Amino acid sequence: MYTHQELYAIFTEHLKNQSFSRDPKELYEPIIYALNPKGKRIRPILTLMACDLFGGDIYKALPQATALELLHNFTLIHDDIMDQSPIRHGKETVFKKWDPNMAILAGDTLYVLAYRYATQASIDVLPQILDTFNETALEACEGQQRDLNFEKIEHVSRADYLEMSRLKTAVLFGASLKIGAIIAKASARNLALLNEFGSNVGLGFQVTDDLLDLYGDEEIFGKKTGVDIIKRKKTFLFVTAIELADLSTRRRLRALYGDEQMAADEKISQVKAIFDQLSIREVTQKAIHDYYNRAMENLDKIDRPEPAKVPLRQLAHQLIYRTQ
Amino acid sequence: MYTHQELYAIFTEHLKNQSFSRDPKELYEPIIYALNPKGKRIRPILTLMACDLFGGDIYKALPQATALELLHNFTLIHDDIMDQSPIRHGKETVFKKWDPNMAILAGDTLYVLAYRYATQASIDVLPQILDTFNETALEACEGQQRDLNFEKIEHVSRADYLEMSRLKTAVLFGASLKIGAIIAKASARNLALLNEFGSNVGLGFQVTDDLLDLYGDEEIFGKKTGVDIIKRKKTFLFVTAIELADLSTRRRLRALYGDEQMAADEKISQVKAIFDQLSIREVTQKAIHDYYNRAMENLDKIDRPEPAKVPLRQLAHQLIYRTQ
Repeated sequence: MYTHQELYAIFTEHLKNQSFSRDPKELYEPIIYALNPKGKRIRPILTLMACDLFGGDIYKALPQATALELLHNFTLIHDDIMDQSPIRHGKETVFKKWDPNMAILAGDTLYVLAYRYATQASIDVLPQILDTFNETALEACEGQQRDLNFEKIEHVSRADYLEMSRLKTAVLFGASLKIGAIIAKASARNLALLNEFGSNVGLGFQVTDDLLDLYGDEEIFGKKTGVDIIKRKKTFLFVTAIELADLSTRRRLRALYGDEQMAADEKISQVKAIFDQLSIREVTQKAIHDYYNRAMENLDKIDRPEPAKVPLRQLAHQLIYRTQ
Repeated sequence: MYTHQELYAIFTEHLKNQSFSRDPKELYEPIIYALNPKGKRIRPILTLMACDLFGGDIYKALPQATALELLHNFTLIHDDIMDQSPIRHGKETVFKKWDPNMAILAGDTLYVLAYRYATQASIDVLPQILDTFNETALEACEGQQRDLNFEKIEHVSRADYLEMSRLKTAVLFGASLKIGAIIAKASARNLALLNEFGSNVGLGFQVTDDLLDLYGDEEIFGKKTGVDIIKRKKTFLFVTAIELADLSTRRRLRALYGDEQMAADEKISQVKAIFDQLSIREVTQKAIHDYYNRAMENLDKIDRPEPAKVPLRQLAHQLIYRTQ
């Protein structure tokens, strides 16, 4: 089996050797910029690991791994315009560094490029890969729409939040694994289990994201905590608190979240006090453990010897229990 | 052979029977709206005609015809945001009726849907269809980037203009035909000729667009003329005038185009006077004839009996010599 480190090295070397530039140059500059060389490349590594798990030739999965990384970056470029996010991974976002028009068009182009890689599969697996790829891209759009809707509606339930996260994040984790396994000719049962595994890892990953935003150690996390509160994001923490709070606490929390006058630090501290009183941190950690455990159960059921599963098991742990 | 009217009826019936809606509904409303039922469906009709020309089963080409119509509408939705166009075909554009975020996401979704149709081809022609589709989509992005660049640079040559129009409009005409012919298993030589035919028709179509914007009969055209001048668009008329004018006229034309104080009607009338003096109308009509003639030469060389070519010959004439 290839280790995470080996696959990362193979993928980044492959990506470095791809040429994304044609004329006009202005179109491709934001694309090359967006494909941040410091990216963790989670999705392509999932593809390669899944291919390896079923004894496939990982080099045959490199075009699809690339397609999934490009698809992911396309969604980031467009989501950043819609969310008006100025910074991603410590760098200015494309729409901020250039302008919204350039970001729209660079995103569109990146999606076409993703598709060009996705189609580079042998003919016996091509239709199944493309079906998976299309469905994933469509669900990513549907997830983003639900996220946009959240800004306009007051009550978002935990179920709404989880469906949004499933579509926006978890589905792509599942598809990245599934596509790698399709290339390795895994059985339909194994594909379904791996997809489910990916979905659980993706949800655990997303809920951890929300947890770290408030409860992360700023030293390790490398960013200021509490940003989601200032952005009034309906995170797992917030929607859970709304569900668990009594009527008066719920009103106080909503009023606090909506308060436009209060200083940021004061607001974070008051919201956090309510969360603490409701044990939101512990409830969230419990949800994260549940996703991890479900993912492990999915992996257990996959019909492959245990040693072959070790890299995926380790990666799932690392993604879900990360501290930054 | 099917007539234009028959193919239009078959395609619109097919499109009407497609369901584009899933959850969340908000995402799909702008898509259904954008697929204006009054659309001329030029690109899908080209696909079906090309398939019919080579004796293919046009019903097998319906998914690809749909894919090309969706691809076209995706580019319109995003281009309208970038160009800040409030109206298209007498209706508010998506970004205007909803907002830019909705238009970005609806466009992305429409593009994914386009791919879902594009992949519905039999396996023996699927890779060639997807290669054509991807290259066309990429070139459409490159054409739009060149168009955006035109706003920032002062000197746009006729060659620059034609390359932009080729990428933004003509390539999709060529690809629509080519994909229909691929389904009908046309030879490589016939595919190349048909692609070239489509490209010439597309360029003729675009130059006619520019001509009608200023010299169209408002009664027939159904819109006010001179809009491109007010928008300072570097049209075929303008770039040709700049090339043909002497130094002082060129300066005057540039100054006029850039004048932000002058009343719209006055500006149109003064620019038109310069165009008339340079015989821009006649030069443009000559260019349009040339594209038509080249398209006819391409069609002549295609290895099919003359009666089979009649619908395409008529459609080319109708698209290039239209008055509205």
